[in-house]
Amino acid sequence: MAAVKVYGPPMSTAVSRVLACLFEKEVDFQLLPVDMSKGQHRSPDFLKLQPFGQVPAFQDDSISLFESRAICRYILDKYPEKGNKFLLGKGDLLERASIDQWLEAEAQSFNPPSSVLVFQLAFAPRMKLKQDENAIQKNEEKLGKVLDVYERRLGETRFLAGDEFSFADLSHLPNCHCIVNATDRGGLLTERENVGRWWKEISSRPSWMKVVEMQNTPKAG
Amino acid sequence: MAAVKVYGPPMSTAVSRVLACLFEKEVDFQLLPVDMSKGQHRSPDFLKLQPFGQVPAFQDDSISLFESRAICRYILDKYPEKGNKFLLGKGDLLERASIDQWLEAEAQSFNPPSSVLVFQLAFAPRMKLKQDENAIQKNEEKLGKVLDVYERRLGETRFLAGDEFSFADLSHLPNCHCIVNATDRGGLLTERENVGRWWKEISSRPSWMKVVEMQNTPKAG
Ligand SMILES: N[C@@H](CCC(=O)N[C@@H](CS)C(=O)NCC(=O)O)C(=O)O
Ligand SMILES: N[C@@H](CCC(=O)N[C@@H](CS)C(=O)NCC(=O)O)C(=O)O
Repeated sequence: MAAVKVYGPPMSTAVSRVLACLFEKEVDFQLLPVDMSKGQHRSPDFLKLQPFGQVPAFQDDSISLFESRAICRYILDKYPEKGNKFLLGKGDLLERASIDQWLEAEAQSFNPPSSVLVFQLAFAPRMKLKQDENAIQKNEEKLGKVLDVYERRLGETRFLAGDEFSFADLSHLPNCHCIVNATDRGGLLTERENVGRWWKEISSRPSWMKVVEMQNTPKAG
Repeated sequence: MAAVKVYGPPMSTAVSRVLACLFEKEVDFQLLPVDMSKGQHRSPDFLKLQPFGQVPAFQDDSISLFESRAICRYILDKYPEKGNKFLLGKGDLLERASIDQWLEAEAQSFNPPSSVLVFQLAFAPRMKLKQDENAIQKNEEKLGKVLDVYERRLGETRFLAGDEFSFADLSHLPNCHCIVNATDRGGLLTERENVGRWWKEISSRPSWMKVVEMQNTPKAG
């Protein structure tokens, strides 16, 4: 049994961020189901692992962690010699700063509007919740402006932080995937020339294809 | 003249996060004004430094960066031997993971509702904008739930990531300060026993007191 445990459904964007990182790093793990439709993420036992009642939760040896981006940083720190060794750069300070900068752009600028669109357009209908048209319109506009910045950036460099695939690109995979594959707004990405090229390249990485396969396998984990 | 340049008004929460970090690290810097009331943050020159049109922007030697939390990480990486050397821990992997985790809790859980309250309750009235009562109520409730998690955590440890002040605590200073000092909802923090004790301790650090002094000095920078 692998020491590394990830708790949560692979369909969750935050869970799939951690899975993508584990596959890039070739670190073995166990995926443990959390049945959110039954409210298991709010059970007292789960709250001991993730006090905000969200997935993913994570364990490795003696550590228990939450927050997908912090979990990824831990994996990168703990397993420097495994799999892709350069997700945080090759040791150059400026390269590392660029990765952290675009990772924050993801977390602060890209994630909020894209998460609203993913929820409203992909999850709300499945959960039979009424869609909030106003939120959809506002966040589509916001995301478009963010992607205009990305379009210019990706006209200068192959990946967000520079010429190598990094943790900053990886962190965008979950929400980009949902927008392209589970909503009718994929054009936000695919119709922008450079963003479209970048999306095609990062989403065809074997690591991400394994995550998608897990998402499409009933009862994965 | 100091090589490090920070662009933006010290009143801005994101700018003041960077200033707090620079004071903790005892790194000299120049603060360069950006007149947001005149839309300078959307001028072509500023957009070259910060493509999303937000403050702060940052320069040091040959690097130009945006995103306050990424700028702080760069400062910590670039000046390991200056000022407070332990904002990212003392080299222990588990300690570092705990700091990253609580830093993400700040960025993902604490920042969104607290930023809405700061904007609606402190800035909107000064800008003569109508307050959105619904947003205030929803985000006060959200922030309360986040602070309930903090209250339990801070019942176990002196600071968020453990027994030492870290970058995770520092990152909370700007929004906490505004809520306590520029809105009538300070009780959200001060009326929670452990959160109140923590707030009192982190806000009385000399580094933060220097930031507040800058904010209160007309034409600081
Ligand atoms: N910032 C957290 C976000 C986690 C998150 O939002 N998880 C969602 C699923 S993608 C969730 O658990 N939602 C249930 C809820 O909030 O009640 C992370 O990155 O780990
Ligand atoms: N995630 C950014 C946020 C920056 C931000 O929101 N800055 C605000 C001032 S605190 C701003 O420039 N607002 C003007 C605008 O968005 O037009 C950071 O941490 O640097």
